[in-house]
Amino acid sequence: MGVRVVAGTAHPALAGAVAATLGAVSVECEPMCFPDGELRPVVGHVRGGDVYVVQPTGPAVNECVIELLLLLDACRRGGADRITAVVPYFGYARQDRRTRSGQPVGARVMAEALAAAGADRMLVVDPHTAALEATCGIPVDMLTAVPVLAGALAQETAETAVVVSPDLGAVKLAEHYAGRLRRPVAVVRKTRVSGMSVHAEELVGDVAGRPAVIVDDMISTGGTVEAAVQVLLGHGAAPDITVAATHGLLAGPARERLGHLPIRRLYVTNTLAVDATPELPLQVRSVASLLADAINRLHHSEPLDSLLMRT
Amino acid sequence: MGVRVVAGTAHPALAGAVAATLGAVSVECEPMCFPDGELRPVVGHVRGGDVYVVQPTGPAVNECVIELLLLLDACRRGGADRITAVVPYFGYARQDRRTRSGQPVGARVMAEALAAAGADRMLVVDPHTAALEATCGIPVDMLTAVPVLAGALAQETAETAVVVSPDLGAVKLAEHYAGRLRRPVAVVRKTRVSGMSVHAEELVGDVAGRPAVIVDDMISTGGTVEAAVQVLLGHGAAPDITVAATHGLLAGPARERLGHLPIRRLYVTNTLAVDATPELPLQVRSVASLLADAINRLHHSEPLDSLLMRT
Amino acid sequence: MGVRVVAGTAHPALAGAVAATLGAVSVECEPMCFPDGELRPVVGHVRGGDVYVVQPTGPAVNECVIELLLLLDACRRGGADRITAVVPYFGYARQDRRTRSGQPVGARVMAEALAAAGADRMLVVDPHTAALEATCGIPVDMLTAVPVLAGALAQETAETAVVVSPDLGAVKLAEHYAGRLRRPVAVVRKTRVSGMSVHAEELVGDVAGRPAVIVDDMISTGGTVEAAVQVLLGHGAAPDITVAATHGLLAGPARERLGHLPIRRLYVTNTLAVDATPELPLQVRSVASLLADAINRLHHSEPLDSLLMRT
Amino acid sequence: MGVRVVAGTAHPALAGAVAATLGAVSVECEPMCFPDGELRPVVGHVRGGDVYVVQPTGPAVNECVIELLLLLDACRRGGADRITAVVPYFGYARQDRRTRSGQPVGARVMAEALAAAGADRMLVVDPHTAALEATCGIPVDMLTAVPVLAGALAQETAETAVVVSPDLGAVKLAEHYAGRLRRPVAVVRKTRVSGMSVHAEELVGDVAGRPAVIVDDMISTGGTVEAAVQVLLGHGAAPDITVAATHGLLAGPARERLGHLPIRRLYVTNTLAVDATPELPLQVRSVASLLADAINRLHHSEPLDSLLMRT
Amino acid sequence: MGVRVVAGTAHPALAGAVAATLGAVSVECEPMCFPDGELRPVVGHVRGGDVYVVQPTGPAVNECVIELLLLLDACRRGGADRITAVVPYFGYARQDRRTRSGQPVGARVMAEALAAAGADRMLVVDPHTAALEATCGIPVDMLTAVPVLAGALAQETAETAVVVSPDLGAVKLAEHYAGRLRRPVAVVRKTRVSGMSVHAEELVGDVAGRPAVIVDDMISTGGTVEAAVQVLLGHGAAPDITVAATHGLLAGPARERLGHLPIRRLYVTNTLAVDATPELPLQVRSVASLLADAINRLHHSEPLDSLLMRT
Amino acid sequence: MGVRVVAGTAHPALAGAVAATLGAVSVECEPMCFPDGELRPVVGHVRGGDVYVVQPTGPAVNECVIELLLLLDACRRGGADRITAVVPYFGYARQDRRTRSGQPVGARVMAEALAAAGADRMLVVDPHTAALEATCGIPVDMLTAVPVLAGALAQETAETAVVVSPDLGAVKLAEHYAGRLRRPVAVVRKTRVSGMSVHAEELVGDVAGRPAVIVDDMISTGGTVEAAVQVLLGHGAAPDITVAATHGLLAGPARERLGHLPIRRLYVTNTLAVDATPELPLQVRSVASLLADAINRLHHSEPLDSLLMRT
Repeated sequence: MGVRVVAGTAHPALAGAVAATLGAVSVECEPMCFPDGELRPVVGHVRGGDVYVVQPTGPAVNECVIELLLLLDACRRGGADRITAVVPYFGYARQDRRTRSGQPVGARVMAEALAAAGADRMLVVDPHTAALEATCGIPVDMLTAVPVLAGALAQETAETAVVVSPDLGAVKLAEHYAGRLRRPVAVVRKTRVSGMSVHAEELVGDVAGRPAVIVDDMISTGGTVEAAVQVLLGHGAAPDITVAATHGLLAGPARERLGHLPIRRLYVTNTLAVDATPELPLQVRSVASLLADAINRLHHSEPLDSLLMRT
Repeated sequence: MGVRVVAGTAHPALAGAVAATLGAVSVECEPMCFPDGELRPVVGHVRGGDVYVVQPTGPAVNECVIELLLLLDACRRGGADRITAVVPYFGYARQDRRTRSGQPVGARVMAEALAAAGADRMLVVDPHTAALEATCGIPVDMLTAVPVLAGALAQETAETAVVVSPDLGAVKLAEHYAGRLRRPVAVVRKTRVSGMSVHAEELVGDVAGRPAVIVDDMISTGGTVEAAVQVLLGHGAAPDITVAATHGLLAGPARERLGHLPIRRLYVTNTLAVDATPELPLQVRSVASLLADAINRLHHSEPLDSLLMRT
Repeated sequence: MGVRVVAGTAHPALAGAVAATLGAVSVECEPMCFPDGELRPVVGHVRGGDVYVVQPTGPAVNECVIELLLLLDACRRGGADRITAVVPYFGYARQDRRTRSGQPVGARVMAEALAAAGADRMLVVDPHTAALEATCGIPVDMLTAVPVLAGALAQETAETAVVVSPDLGAVKLAEHYAGRLRRPVAVVRKTRVSGMSVHAEELVGDVAGRPAVIVDDMISTGGTVEAAVQVLLGHGAAPDITVAATHGLLAGPARERLGHLPIRRLYVTNTLAVDATPELPLQVRSVASLLADAINRLHHSEPLDSLLMRT
Repeated sequence: MGVRVVAGTAHPALAGAVAATLGAVSVECEPMCFPDGELRPVVGHVRGGDVYVVQPTGPAVNECVIELLLLLDACRRGGADRITAVVPYFGYARQDRRTRSGQPVGARVMAEALAAAGADRMLVVDPHTAALEATCGIPVDMLTAVPVLAGALAQETAETAVVVSPDLGAVKLAEHYAGRLRRPVAVVRKTRVSGMSVHAEELVGDVAGRPAVIVDDMISTGGTVEAAVQVLLGHGAAPDITVAATHGLLAGPARERLGHLPIRRLYVTNTLAVDATPELPLQVRSVASLLADAINRLHHSEPLDSLLMRT
Repeated sequence: MGVRVVAGTAHPALAGAVAATLGAVSVECEPMCFPDGELRPVVGHVRGGDVYVVQPTGPAVNECVIELLLLLDACRRGGADRITAVVPYFGYARQDRRTRSGQPVGARVMAEALAAAGADRMLVVDPHTAALEATCGIPVDMLTAVPVLAGALAQETAETAVVVSPDLGAVKLAEHYAGRLRRPVAVVRKTRVSGMSVHAEELVGDVAGRPAVIVDDMISTGGTVEAAVQVLLGHGAAPDITVAATHGLLAGPARERLGHLPIRRLYVTNTLAVDATPELPLQVRSVASLLADAINRLHHSEPLDSLLMRT
Repeated sequence: MGVRVVAGTAHPALAGAVAATLGAVSVECEPMCFPDGELRPVVGHVRGGDVYVVQPTGPAVNECVIELLLLLDACRRGGADRITAVVPYFGYARQDRRTRSGQPVGARVMAEALAAAGADRMLVVDPHTAALEATCGIPVDMLTAVPVLAGALAQETAETAVVVSPDLGAVKLAEHYAGRLRRPVAVVRKTRVSGMSVHAEELVGDVAGRPAVIVDDMISTGGTVEAAVQVLLGHGAAPDITVAATHGLLAGPARERLGHLPIRRLYVTNTLAVDATPELPLQVRSVASLLADAINRLHHSEPLDSLLMRT
């Protein structure tokens, strides 16, 4: 039962790099999209294989999700022995609860659909919610790209720098980075000045005159980073800011918004295909080795521990 | 337990017309699409209701499918007593088998996902495959719009006209129309002239000098109709052609392609939202009454028989 | 994990031939039927095996279905590693939709029961509906016996012969035969002469003075073939008719009905056990090699492509 | 939501009697059996109903089981609100364990298939194993016909009579009868005379000169009763024997075998359709009122307690 | 379909209060525990009811979980129309992810077991993880007791008081309280002084000379509160501390530990049965009205919005 | 895929003995119990293994069940290839039916939960009900410890001894022992003296002056054995009584109750951890070899026949 890597159209370059790193068979696939938008990908020979379908579900997220479902079904019918959905960026992870009545719980809808389509197991990287594995019926291993990005940051982060969590949700992630970089943590959060409903961004930690490394799991529209930068500058941080995030969605106004800020470098990984862009000092680090390592361990029944996100 | 109609963004006009015809509560819904493409619709008060979620899954088909899944989940969590997915056009119905190795069976993937998301029952109109109900775990009632379109055709079809099935798959449908219109049937089909692999379009039936009414379940890119028109003209049919199809996808080159043909009128229904277009003599008939009638019968536990597609 | 062939009582000769062709272990089974009609077959040692349960579900179809369910359960409890139901003739395949209100969808009922009883995968031959695989939750590979029968036909079919589809449902099958035999196709179909509800059998294609080869997926009561023969003769076909069908149910009046027709040879396969009969020029070709080939490929993880029915 | 009674072909007389007793709608059904043995029953209007499908699964047991599955599916698709399978005699109940390796557990296979086909609940009468309800995923209410038969026995059982359990499996049932008849119990059982593997039938209890009432849940081939009668007579019981059993399968040699014994009366119920027969002093008591009572209570949400088998 | 309240043994007083508030039928139940520890509760008449099984799964948590599963099964078999598990305190909610390899995801194990046993829906109060509803296949409504406790706090909280979140996980909860009390928020968190692995408790916000109200979702062993009090006092807070938490587990050393601290009042609710205790200034507020209100709205199909936890 | 033995806290000694006998890897596990009673065991490396989780569910039965569920989930998430729950004593097996309205069917609740948590297969020893395997969706192999105990009994049972079944439920078990020991069987049962509701213990078989060997599947509170001893003595049996049972629960008053009886030896196995006790002449025989043998055969795909309970 050999390893077979199946690439969806969401990110064939990453899939190819994973296969190459593994020295594994990259299954020839043929995407197909009819003029009315229906997809019908054709998967090559997977019978008897330990199959890994690589497909992040970033933008266009709904296209990617449906294609992934179809690929899983095709692999199952094609006789794969075991199918692992490798979803480096798992869309809809933010929808792990209803924040108002009448909403769906999108994370669960996606998890159910993936399992129904034939996935036996899933590999994700730094999902927005650590409860993702409780959401899925199939086992999920949640890898982390923090070591990949921290390695890059370590080489050029000043000794005086502070790791900044741009909101409360990223504090544990920031501490993870801080531990690796041996730097202190500061936290931006919304607060209420008094009992009245007046909000303000608050900064916890000392940043005066220091370079800052803002970290988060993903950069979507850039709004959170923009607000954090303003708070940092307002508290006297040096206008020497680095940003690091696993997932570079860079959706909507993100590129323009971030292009106006004093960001020296913006590190993301290639969990999503990220286009170079003149207005941003983008540095893309690859998670291909991380994924290949995880796949190799799954295939050879070795522990994944050191690769896992632990919150 | 009153009837509640929930409208997705695929076709709010149809949903509204259905609700109005029924005199039913149209649940206020709020579509939501984040900049990175994730959807999070918010459904109004459905608790205790007999809920009908109206959402054809035509172009953009994958967006429509995912939104439908999310709407179903929201209704289920919101306490709907019974949820019927009303999918006037059911995308992916053509994928009810693998025609080559390595393909998925898309119809089943969609059927499984809908059931997992919370649908108890489904209403569709003239699905491409009558086996759709065997594909779905939940009961499916397959309505037909033939009476709607045949009614329109009856008023203006010449006595000498012939009903034409543009390929073998539509023969039963053509017979259905022919019975209502009291006209004969002709069939276009691909044939092989001899034992050699040479194909030609063949016409079965007498069309010389007669107006033709080409009928099909749907018009996607218009290729099938275009070929049928050419065969008809080649066999001496009058250049007075009418086309009728339940679903007007009119995808890709359809509008341009059909615009060049001697088509007097092109009838479709509003199972999908169809834009008027100057290059086509489009006539859109509404299935709102058909759907409202079916919903009314389901709600009051009456038989659907006369509304059903029977093949 | 070796191949193990388990034979139900429906067709032990076929199962034995498959096992012999494979050189595989034929698991010793012991049928058991209590005086009140309950079955309790006992399956030999299957633990750890790649098990193939061979059981067509032809007449007595309900006995065969129940025995198959019990065999699957016995294999599952007995520790089989993988269980493939090999159902050369799949009964109830015609029930893939409701043609009137109040009917069941029998194909789905059978598919659900087989999966619940323990089948991981299914192999069928020329099922009546190609949508069978969408009906089943487990993967189904649909093999075709056309090459087996076409090989037999090729040796004795006159150069002038025409392949005849006795109704619209068999046209694709007829084209499949015609391609292999390098002969033209003719089609019999019911038509309505005018708009009135008067039906007649119509023949499409030129058969005057030519021998005909009528092909179908199965011969049940022989009614379809009988009608086709009459139409052919009425259109001047030579009284030299060959019939070929994958499944020879020959139910009810079939033997007598066909015995009266000018049929030179009647080819079927042994997907069902067919008794020789003096009144019919029956020629039975074996699908044992076809099934053995498919099993061998499944077991060794090779592609099935060339063995598959493609519609 | 009114009560609707659907009758399979296994026992329409019982279904009719139940409906009549209830004053409920008897849904018009149309059995259909094709010449090749496939069944396709058509169920009348059940939409919105509280539907009870009456079908014992006695001989021909496999036909009855399949028809029941199809009826359940038809009711589900036809929109029944709640479906209760009323299976007065539940075949395959004896197969609640494997007594040798390689066997199936038939009771579970049937239970799974019924639930998959659409039953929400099940009503049975005196099933062979009280663990039947643990076997089924859906709730099962196990009614008892002992009061029905005990009522008949009471009127003509001599004061000196002994209730006899013909094997260990029926002791609790015998005690149930004895309590109602206020008579003592005797038990026949196989014993081993010494430590050697020599068996003999043993009788526990005093029967000398007394009439005996042998009771059991069912009479299949009559072998158990025959052996018990011989033991009774060997122990000096009066040659005045009555037999009572809920289910009269009377399979294979039963009628001939029992006809030779000094049985004064043989009481069974009509859980199965039992033909009168000249060689047996058969007395058939009806369970229609019992079933109607249970259905009525289920429909009106009243407790079933007094109708239930309690072991 | 009337409301029926079923009380497990975990907290009959709360169940009784809920039923009394509702004016609903309290189903008579009979707990049963065999000498070897097996439970077999007997549930009274629930057939046709809209049943609410009230059972928090606090200490002894595993006994409570198993009893809840058995109660749900008994209600399902007893014919309840709809079953809602009312689990005011949901144990195992903290296990919504693996924090080390080799762990289970306990929250999901419990969620799966509840759904399998027959729950259609679940009501919980302030679960430890808001992702609980993504974890469960059945819909979950997450109520909040913050208004109940905030109402009590409002009457006696000094104008100068600060609401304190004792760790990062409770910040949103603290903001919820602060909004209702119109007070500012302070946050205690573990921080790392430098890049080295040295930790300290850090306080964010101004507490000098002010009374503090520490809030959390639950108090288990009291360790978190103890640490927070020490930090508060270290930062000059007034030794006038109030503590409020929805769930008062007060496990292990909690009572002794908290008894030594300058806590003026300790507010909890009765989601769990809490014993009065001399060493603690315990104030227990009832969630009976909250639960009764939610049940009433579910039963009458009204929106729950204002009762829900929103994070 | 090697064998891995995982030990829960219910009986680590047995698990260790099984692993040692097998020469198999004993996976290092770490039990964890929080102060509030929640369990969170951590399982060592199981990826790719053929894993056997050893955990009898005897007292404290509910703790044991929950821990078993968590262990299964942990193994599944940890990547075990196949998971067999080895449950030497299966608690709740007596609850395989409702004996009164309102009860749960506990055996099924447990079976469902185990399957949901991840067990693929189960091994049990002498379960109270042989229908246990029909209750479980996953295959169950039911081993018997009779040979183990009969071997011990054989060495010291007098030639004149009688094997005694203390109630009707144990007769088949007693016959199993008697066959191995080559001794006759006697049976104690409750009887009704006349038709009145007066009960008495009755003894079937000749025991006068003979030593007795009472056998049962388990000894819970000792009540059944106590009653049997009294009947035996009342019928003149020698005051030389041996008792043998697979499962020594010895719950509640058992030790005291049995300590007062003239029992020479009380044999049980270690399916449960049994403490030595001065008041009882307890002899514990190990089932470690039995379990190891079964595991070895499962792992190497050999038949289990000779190890199985057959009733």
